[in-house]
Amino acid sequence: MRKLFEYNWLVREEWFDWCEEIPEAELLKERIGGQRSILRTLVHVIDVEHAWIRGLMGDPEQHYDYEVYRSLADARRLSSEAAAEVRPFVEQWTDELENERMHIFAYGDVMRHAIAHEIHHIGQLSVWARELGRKPVTANLIMRGPR
Amino acid sequence: MRKLFEYNWLVREEWFDWCEEIPEAELLKERIGGQRSILRTLVHVIDVEHAWIRGLMGDPEQHYDYEVYRSLADARRLSSEAAAEVRPFVEQWTDELENERMHIFAYGDVMRHAIAHEIHHIGQLSVWARELGRKPVTANLIMRGPR
Repeated sequence: MRKLFEYNWLVREEWFDWCEEIPEAELLKERIGGQRSILRTLVHVIDVEHAWIRGLMGDPEQHYDYEVYRSLADARRLSSEAAAEVRPFVEQWTDELENERMHIFAYGDVMRHAIAHEIHHIGQLSVWARELGRKPVTANLIMRGPR
Repeated sequence: MRKLFEYNWLVREEWFDWCEEIPEAELLKERIGGQRSILRTLVHVIDVEHAWIRGLMGDPEQHYDYEVYRSLADARRLSSEAAAEVRPFVEQWTDELENERMHIFAYGDVMRHAIAHEIHHIGQLSVWARELGRKPVTANLIMRGPR
């Protein structure tokens, strides 16, 4: 589990680096699919991971207001803060938690849901990158090459 | 691990169902990103999963010729055959295999690479689905709703 979260956090950081090369208007531009813009899709994956893992940590459900994070710098700061909050839980994950329950959901399924959710949305960014004529961040988990 | 492969196989089946509603010309149409068409992207995820897991099984590297699988029925048949070949290995996966080596790669990393690879490409299909004015297959792992 932990390794797939680390993969997502690494890929997310590389997408933020990628975004630094793109005019902010393009990051905010309305697109087809996903959360309808590059920046909004990034804020969405941050928010959803944070909300689910907080749930597993026993904290009340909380969501970010996407309209507040309309600059790359703000989204990037949000990502660091949100990941820092859930990282200890992810790092301490053990298979014994697999069948603990949050409402009707097994903890393991919630973890896998959060993992798959981010990878899926990142796939959407890769299409938009190509539409912009840019090479997307690699999705490779092995053979990622030099940063 | 097993549960994420099962998730991918279920999602892939639902994408094949989704494709049944789409004219074959649209499935083959050249698009931006991914493997440049819906059908080719599906054949690619089948091929890559099959190649990596065969590697873990100790079988020689083998790839499908994407140009052969240019109909939905052929791609669907390929998916069933390829998944059937690797399913026993996936079902018998245990954490003791995590650090076995295939060349320089840990078995666990290869498994996670194959999982992330498919989810990423499926995210690309979801953008193309919206471009076609269609609702994509849900990427949810929990709360998938009725089929």
